[in-house]
Amino acid sequence: MRFDIITIFPRMFDSIFSAGVVKKAVEKGIIEIKIHDLRDFTTDKHRQVDDRPYGGLEGMVLKPEPIFRAVEEIRQPVESLTCLLSPQGKTFNSALAEKLAGYQQVILICGRYEGVDERVIEHLVDEEISIGDYVLTGGELAAAVVVDAVSRFVPGVVGKEESVRHDSFTEGLLDFPQYTRPRDFRGYRVPSVLFSGDHKKIARWRLKKALEKTLVRRPDLLKTRKLSSEEEELLIEIQKERKES
Amino acid sequence: MRFDIITIFPRMFDSIFSAGVVKKAVEKGIIEIKIHDLRDFTTDKHRQVDDRPYGGLEGMVLKPEPIFRAVEEIRQPVESLTCLLSPQGKTFNSALAEKLAGYQQVILICGRYEGVDERVIEHLVDEEISIGDYVLTGGELAAAVVVDAVSRFVPGVVGKEESVRHDSFTEGLLDFPQYTRPRDFRGYRVPSVLFSGDHKKIARWRLKKALEKTLVRRPDLLKTRKLSSEEEELLIEIQKERKES
Repeated sequence: MRFDIITIFPRMFDSIFSAGVVKKAVEKGIIEIKIHDLRDFTTDKHRQVDDRPYGGLEGMVLKPEPIFRAVEEIRQPVESLTCLLSPQGKTFNSALAEKLAGYQQVILICGRYEGVDERVIEHLVDEEISIGDYVLTGGELAAAVVVDAVSRFVPGVVGKEESVRHDSFTEGLLDFPQYTRPRDFRGYRVPSVLFSGDHKKIARWRLKKALEKTLVRRPDLLKTRKLSSEEEELLIEIQKERKES
Repeated sequence: MRFDIITIFPRMFDSIFSAGVVKKAVEKGIIEIKIHDLRDFTTDKHRQVDDRPYGGLEGMVLKPEPIFRAVEEIRQPVESLTCLLSPQGKTFNSALAEKLAGYQQVILICGRYEGVDERVIEHLVDEEISIGDYVLTGGELAAAVVVDAVSRFVPGVVGKEESVRHDSFTEGLLDFPQYTRPRDFRGYRVPSVLFSGDHKKIARWRLKKALEKTLVRRPDLLKTRKLSSEEEELLIEIQKERKES
């Protein structure tokens, strides 16, 4: 799978993909990440990528021509999707990440300044994406986040040890707590159930903790999830305990 | 304001803050970003930061000791907040960004692998933060996103031209469309209202477009927003037009 990032700050990406799982996937040739300088697609001598907005307003807007030229030159004759990162986009989530992982090429245009000429959005972009309800100084970090989250769904990128299976949101619940050595750290002890050797009991404890964390922090996630009878039972137990304490 | 990022991949940050508004803010001394290698806070010769989880499971969990040691050494005697980036956290948004900008120091611990020992979360961390409902290969990009979004709320970071005022979410609506030259691009024309010179008319058109975009893409944002009478009027107009088309 191939990612193409179009940006006015290509140097920002020099080190972003230099570590961990994404780096390994690039080295193995499973994914390819190409960074393009938007200024390389201008035709004037000042390499101008932005201009004043019509209608009067502070700030600068990214011009349509260089972006159209860039995408038209970069787009491959494969299943390709062109996305713009902007606060106006559809909210990015695991489902959208999985969908994007189904394309052979994903082009990511990084928004900047006050915005991008609307004709880019109407006539060039397939999907406008926002990574969350906050404003960034530009779309560069958002593009990097999309590459990272989408890569995890590309077969071969995440190894068995870092398996997608146990991860949050893929099952619709927050993760249960994890503990490692030492057993006693400054008097804070690892819950004894984890030493019981009883795998069924441990699994049930973990499920209960995951449900409790989700209930307290993200009750919205429980609303859209189909619960098993064990989960419903545990939820009743949790709510009872919380009332008593 | 000072940000301290604790990570096992410090090199990832070599270029991340090398561009744009954040870079300028660092150069002007308004914000300071320090990157810390978690391995520098280990005491064994293998500089081990992770270990197998108790209770049996694939993957590795970040150990408590190096993280406690790091935070205790880094934390300054000022208003300081320690955050962990993880998919289990509270969902990051503009309000949380603004809150964080009120601290003199924000420490950001980047989660990795299957997770972080729960005692870090229970006894060291003030705020567990998730930047969205997707899983990243690590907390590094999430920490960079937090630094970027929080910086925008630090006085002096965003200049007049890139003013926070007009930006999305600060007013609870998505942005209206922006246009710049050329007036006609491949037959796609800039809406004529923007050349009318009638500033009241332009302002009303922009508000209407912002409301329409929000209604179509993010109706959830309208539910929590107090609408002015002009906005209510425009919303009725929009709904009528959408029915007719």
